[in-house]
Amino acid sequence: MSGTIVQESLEKVKLALVETRFFTFAAPPDELILDSGEKLGPITLAYETYGKLNSLRTNAILVLHALSGDAHAAGFHIGEKKPGWWDEMIGPGKAFDTDKYFVICSNVLGGCKGSTGPSSINPVTNRPYGLDFPTITIKDMVNAQKRLIDHLGIEKLLCVVGGSMGGMQALQWAASYPEMVCSVIPIATTLKHSPQQIAFNEVGRLAIMADPDWKGGNYHGLSVAARGLSVARMIGHITYMSDSSMSEKFGRRFRNSKIPSKFGTEFEVEGYLHYHGDNFVKRFDANSYLYITKALDYFDLSNGRTLFEVFKSIRAKFLIMAFKSDWLYPTYQSKEILKICKLAGIEATYCEINSTYGHDAFLLEIDEETHLVKHFLKKVFNGLCV
Amino acid sequence: MSGTIVQESLEKVKLALVETRFFTFAAPPDELILDSGEKLGPITLAYETYGKLNSLRTNAILVLHALSGDAHAAGFHIGEKKPGWWDEMIGPGKAFDTDKYFVICSNVLGGCKGSTGPSSINPVTNRPYGLDFPTITIKDMVNAQKRLIDHLGIEKLLCVVGGSMGGMQALQWAASYPEMVCSVIPIATTLKHSPQQIAFNEVGRLAIMADPDWKGGNYHGLSVAARGLSVARMIGHITYMSDSSMSEKFGRRFRNSKIPSKFGTEFEVEGYLHYHGDNFVKRFDANSYLYITKALDYFDLSNGRTLFEVFKSIRAKFLIMAFKSDWLYPTYQSKEILKICKLAGIEATYCEINSTYGHDAFLLEIDEETHLVKHFLKKVFNGLCV
Repeated sequence: MSGTIVQESLEKVKLALVETRFFTFAAPPDELILDSGEKLGPITLAYETYGKLNSLRTNAILVLHALSGDAHAAGFHIGEKKPGWWDEMIGPGKAFDTDKYFVICSNVLGGCKGSTGPSSINPVTNRPYGLDFPTITIKDMVNAQKRLIDHLGIEKLLCVVGGSMGGMQALQWAASYPEMVCSVIPIATTLKHSPQQIAFNEVGRLAIMADPDWKGGNYHGLSVAARGLSVARMIGHITYMSDSSMSEKFGRRFRNSKIPSKFGTEFEVEGYLHYHGDNFVKRFDANSYLYITKALDYFDLSNGRTLFEVFKSIRAKFLIMAFKSDWLYPTYQSKEILKICKLAGIEATYCEINSTYGHDAFLLEIDEETHLVKHFLKKVFNGLCV
Repeated sequence: MSGTIVQESLEKVKLALVETRFFTFAAPPDELILDSGEKLGPITLAYETYGKLNSLRTNAILVLHALSGDAHAAGFHIGEKKPGWWDEMIGPGKAFDTDKYFVICSNVLGGCKGSTGPSSINPVTNRPYGLDFPTITIKDMVNAQKRLIDHLGIEKLLCVVGGSMGGMQALQWAASYPEMVCSVIPIATTLKHSPQQIAFNEVGRLAIMADPDWKGGNYHGLSVAARGLSVARMIGHITYMSDSSMSEKFGRRFRNSKIPSKFGTEFEVEGYLHYHGDNFVKRFDANSYLYITKALDYFDLSNGRTLFEVFKSIRAKFLIMAFKSDWLYPTYQSKEILKICKLAGIEATYCEINSTYGHDAFLLEIDEETHLVKHFLKKVFNGLCV
């Protein structure tokens, strides 16, 4: 009984107030050379850290966010009531236990939450980059993060972890910097984007570019491509949920008894989508949406080599998680990660969680994830990863 | 061997040239009273027929089309090289054998292929209805078809058949006019639209209404809401295919080696979607898309009653078909039709076809469908349905 009480009181401990910090690097003439061959600099990455780096610098965990995420993964900002996007997983006593581990999360290159992206000022023109921003890949995001990790004085990451696009970055970390990564937790992700995944992104991009307020990408300070970006986000939202979670949440219920204007919001599910579409417009940049979805679509970890070649150099241990009802990143894609791990002689565990939440499950199935992650991290941390 | 040759030569027999005809009814003051309580008239339905009605008038089959279909289900129009949309199923020796059966197909009410819809002239204003067109339901479509069937002198339909929205109309026929329907073949369809199905439609509608060329629905003769309608159609296309059929058809192949302009067409799957989106704009009306998708979303066969009440009055035999990889109208929805048939004591067969084509399978799995339909129709035609 007393053990239970200790556990509960531990879980109630919250992270203190956190704040986003900024790291700027690659000032000309030392720009970052991108996957495309283009140069980009200076680059700022927004990031947050939780917990303390130990004296041996062996307890650092890099958390990587999904398409619309940001550096604020956990804790509270001053004056805000809502914690970071993965707060239930990061904190004292939680899966990524900040009493033990030093957790880092950074906003991706190309993003719009403090990191350099298409809405940043182009130092050459003193105006927002817009479509002059170079094409970005998952590898570029990871190469930028590598500079941040170097800056923080970390030579080896105990773990890189992320769901969805975060999982792609985690895989890319293991492939690009094998000597730096002790373990990987790719969640609800894939080794390469499928044509169906590309198709959904492309339709979202077309909706944005069809919006006259997008103005060929040069809308910054003039307008917001609200209708287009909202449609893109709504398409995304449908793919993040499952047929059954939608049925459970909304059924065929009407939003209210009042008859709306023709083609207005009638069904609850429509109201939900409109709300999330409208909200997204307030917090996300349309051009970032274009660039980041393209990075997703370009993602193919093999990148011209065979997967076996890529994986045979990887030294990390893998905990692969997928969710039964996730139809956007179906479980077979996670099983492909397991398969190539096994083939390459990598220690890998695959866990398929019986969730009905669809792709969103990686943000919602906290208990299952916590159980699996805690056990895995303990093993990796206590093992020899030097 | 000789049997095979006869079969082949039979299959080569084509329908002669066919043409679309028009039936106009419900002229004021005898307008059709719609589900909404509003009145509509006069109404024209475009329709085609294939084969001959027998002297007993017992061989009539009504084929019902899906969202973007039309009355031209089979045969060739003068000067056209492409036959009707279900030509592989309708004709001499085919599943719906026009040597035996009299097949009718009509464009739905609310459509834009010759039947009265939002692009038709409103006799009150002498201008296209636009959004003054009343809300249409699947039941309204069926009630209009009933007038056509009466006009053709048919008291009893040997079979009503359709895939997707056509299947909903077929179910509604059996429920609304039980004494007129001997058998029903609902294919890849549902008893009611699910929130996921509503969600995809709603995002398509929002894309159309976000297009400034839509002009609040009053674009007729002025512009075409091309970008919005194209996005809506592309969303549809993704849902009509399966993840695996897309992977097989496109993989991650690039369209050509030339590097496109930023955010132009790169992947083959993007080119395919763009092509079909652009093509659709040339042949479909944006307002019809709004009205017909709303009719789909409103569809709930129970309509305030219990399903058991609805089905216990149905006299038809059922052949229910669904496709394993169809995730837009998943097989569980077809199994629900079977379940309520069994409960209500209706003779029903459920066939799940092991196709990888997704929802499109109902237009593609011709061999399987032909086999099942031929056998079923023979049984129904030879049985007593009087």
